[in-house]
Amino acid sequence: MTDLTVEVYDTTLRDGAQQEGMNLSVADKMAIAPLLDELGVGVIEGGWPGAVPKDTEFFALAAKELTFRNAQLAAFGMTRKAGTTAAADPQVRALLDSEAPIVTLVAKSDIRHAERALRVAPDENLRMIEETVAFLAGEGRRVILDAEHFFDGYQYDAEYAIRALQAGVAAGADVVCLCDTNGGMLPDDVSEIVRAVGERVDAVLGMHAHNDSGCAVANSMAAVAAGATHVQGCVNGYGERTGNADLVAVVANLELKRGVSALKHDGLAESTRIAHAIAEITNIAPFARQPYVGASAFAHKAGLHASAIRVDPDLYQHLDPSLVGNDMRMLVSEMAGRASIELKGKELGFDLAGQNELLGRVTDRVKHAEAAGYTFDAADASFELLLRSELGETPAFWDVETWRVRVSSVPGDPTDADAEAVVKVRAGSERIVALGEGNGPVNALDHALRDALCGVYPEIEEFELTDFKVRIMEASHGTDAVTRVLITTVHRETGTTWRTVGVGPNVIEASWEALADSLVYGLLKAGVERR
Amino acid sequence: MTDLTVEVYDTTLRDGAQQEGMNLSVADKMAIAPLLDELGVGVIEGGWPGAVPKDTEFFALAAKELTFRNAQLAAFGMTRKAGTTAAADPQVRALLDSEAPIVTLVAKSDIRHAERALRVAPDENLRMIEETVAFLAGEGRRVILDAEHFFDGYQYDAEYAIRALQAGVAAGADVVCLCDTNGGMLPDDVSEIVRAVGERVDAVLGMHAHNDSGCAVANSMAAVAAGATHVQGCVNGYGERTGNADLVAVVANLELKRGVSALKHDGLAESTRIAHAIAEITNIAPFARQPYVGASAFAHKAGLHASAIRVDPDLYQHLDPSLVGNDMRMLVSEMAGRASIELKGKELGFDLAGQNELLGRVTDRVKHAEAAGYTFDAADASFELLLRSELGETPAFWDVETWRVRVSSVPGDPTDADAEAVVKVRAGSERIVALGEGNGPVNALDHALRDALCGVYPEIEEFELTDFKVRIMEASHGTDAVTRVLITTVHRETGTTWRTVGVGPNVIEASWEALADSLVYGLLKAGVERR
Repeated sequence: MTDLTVEVYDTTLRDGAQQEGMNLSVADKMAIAPLLDELGVGVIEGGWPGAVPKDTEFFALAAKELTFRNAQLAAFGMTRKAGTTAAADPQVRALLDSEAPIVTLVAKSDIRHAERALRVAPDENLRMIEETVAFLAGEGRRVILDAEHFFDGYQYDAEYAIRALQAGVAAGADVVCLCDTNGGMLPDDVSEIVRAVGERVDAVLGMHAHNDSGCAVANSMAAVAAGATHVQGCVNGYGERTGNADLVAVVANLELKRGVSALKHDGLAESTRIAHAIAEITNIAPFARQPYVGASAFAHKAGLHASAIRVDPDLYQHLDPSLVGNDMRMLVSEMAGRASIELKGKELGFDLAGQNELLGRVTDRVKHAEAAGYTFDAADASFELLLRSELGETPAFWDVETWRVRVSSVPGDPTDADAEAVVKVRAGSERIVALGEGNGPVNALDHALRDALCGVYPEIEEFELTDFKVRIMEASHGTDAVTRVLITTVHRETGTTWRTVGVGPNVIEASWEALADSLVYGLLKAGVERR
Repeated sequence: MTDLTVEVYDTTLRDGAQQEGMNLSVADKMAIAPLLDELGVGVIEGGWPGAVPKDTEFFALAAKELTFRNAQLAAFGMTRKAGTTAAADPQVRALLDSEAPIVTLVAKSDIRHAERALRVAPDENLRMIEETVAFLAGEGRRVILDAEHFFDGYQYDAEYAIRALQAGVAAGADVVCLCDTNGGMLPDDVSEIVRAVGERVDAVLGMHAHNDSGCAVANSMAAVAAGATHVQGCVNGYGERTGNADLVAVVANLELKRGVSALKHDGLAESTRIAHAIAEITNIAPFARQPYVGASAFAHKAGLHASAIRVDPDLYQHLDPSLVGNDMRMLVSEMAGRASIELKGKELGFDLAGQNELLGRVTDRVKHAEAAGYTFDAADASFELLLRSELGETPAFWDVETWRVRVSSVPGDPTDADAEAVVKVRAGSERIVALGEGNGPVNALDHALRDALCGVYPEIEEFELTDFKVRIMEASHGTDAVTRVLITTVHRETGTTWRTVGVGPNVIEASWEALADSLVYGLLKAGVERR
């Protein structure tokens, strides 16, 4: 289908925002919309003006302040209420007032939903569709009809479902979008139904998929193969329940695997950055395993793969990650051999090719460390420190004399469980003793260590601890087990992030190691020398 | 396809463990395998004995200690090396030594991989397949051939790919599993290729999908529709890069939407609990939007849907969530909440039917506690304590006056990082002060608390702490986050196991709660009264 063009319709700001835990402000929407335009989608559904006050405000602000290069805004709303006219329905008027050039009308196409959820007669529902579409099209809007629960409705009463679409098309709808609202379809059903609809309805067909069967992306692909030329979805697969179709995955499959023209601008090569930027705004942690744009999407761990990847990376990846703005990453683990250490070194900027003796030493240290509970695939910075120490390149920024931490609790007391840490170090030419308080022992240690060092190394004030994970490694030994701590640190000014790992007989020892390494790594990257 | 039976092959412990950030210990594998058996999978791939020392150890331990009701263990390995015999290849021998009744052999079926990654002549690769399969089948093993990169290989050189399968089948392989190793296939390609292979290869065909195109579940479904009767996947979709096919989603689609018989035991109704329990062991935060078993999978935001859901929940869900052990959740869903509390109470031996006021109180406490970071799914004992406290049935075995813990370290000193705890309690008619030492603060607290109480309650000497897990709940706040601790305790004599949960501003506070509750629960179960 090389000459095919498909319209890409993004509903992150409306259906995506239905996701549990997501709450987008007007400012959030104003920040996300330009990113969607940069990606190159054809339509950005901004929300439901008239029903959601924040959405009314978004459209007003967008009309004044946003200019898109590729996209047009769509306002989402419902067909008119029963027993009135479209022109008299304030909810319909709000769609016009939004000034969006496109209006997407959700309509009932499942007769059970018309009768039982909307509580209107089947014929009245058809009139509601026809009149609302006709009114908005008459006002110069491009109208997209979202046929809600279309697939379930078609399986229950195909005639009625088709009549609902035909009512919209006769009245001037430009697209009829078939919605798998409950998300339960499988691709072969979608394929069969879209094909059958195409034989009876003379309009552009669209697909709106949810992921309840784990098939939203495949259902969107199946619909396009069966004749749909409009696909709806959300960046990062956001949405209610299991989410909507992941728009980037659908577009990447269409463009890179089927030669379909989809985005209005070649934004796919920026899609990893754009997807992550949107995740920063929604404040929902990105899913590492997300197809195409996930942090792990092109990350390889097995030693078996690494030696082959050195021969030809394309042997072990389904496409070149740069096509979606992502990177191949080698993960260092106990399964790693010299080949993956060499590749990982290269990624970090160290040319280790041919240094077999060094590669052997590093590989051994990694294996021993992983056997003792360390994990380097999640802690690049600790791996780099290990590598640099074998290369003799890690300065001792400070020496620790001793540290201690104390936690106490009087149940019921408001000063319950305060923690204090004391750290004694030598840095520069000084011996420094510092006290830190915190809401727990690790927090107190972090404060004490920073306080001790920031006189000599003020650079560390820019390093912020942003994530802290604890894992007990040998479950069979209870609290006698080894504890592993992973710490994520961010440089406040540059935004650079790094991860370090510590292992010890207890959480505090392990945290101490990961904390200290995170500061050492940050100083190295800042080009600081031992003072 | 109502009469179809499909074999379900789980590779969580081998291919799933390739996931970035996952590092399974032998104890983790020993804990996950029985859960997979409980789910009802037919085959559990345990790992790669001979190549990964931990996996060798797992098979040895599993042979001694694990008995499955449904599953058989499979050992994964490679075809023999070039220029030797299968019998003389130590890696092949290790597969026999594992005592697994099934051996899964990964073989190159893409001629480019044979030549460029393995660096053997195409014919030698075919002999390696044939001889290794024949040797293992001759030793009485059931052999499954995993044809690596099959789809890419077939698209490049179909004849060679087919010959690789035929070599395995001629030598006695029971299943040839077609692997989309790079995960880039789309369902229509899978469908076409599986059908074509079925016409030329006379064996059970299997499918092993990865999710790089976001279509792993759909590709597995497409393969079954095209004739495959063996599917491989991982619980929670774990795996390298974007992960393997999510096994529960594939099985639920097959059983609930296509009437295929897949699990050996009706474990689907327990799949949400099992998937979450496995996530606790891997310590990888569950993905809320995961199909079927995700926390959000049947969660509806109120609004447009709410009134319709009251009319008939099936209008807004693709199937009944109880079929997969999940729950519909809504802002107004206290009814559903009470029902599950009632069921859970029944499971624990409390008849709460009709006690609406009590059920409402317990439901509220559970909701508040879960919002604060507690999880009762994995901590039945803590839930029972909560329930008993609402029933007024929990005696105060002791009162805590105060506790404190101190950890100190002198790097390089052999007495490094000793921990001491002091606990002051009232129990029986006494005030008791006890000191505990340990290799970490939690261990020291555990020792001190037991030492303080065992004079009055000697029963607690039978309780042994066997597992201790820590999770930081709000990653975005670094060490200021809330910490959750899960503790598993076993009664040394009876072997009964129970789990308690604690939440606090730091790991020590949280541990204290979980430790104290584990002792209270153990005393209650031993029928001990307050002394």
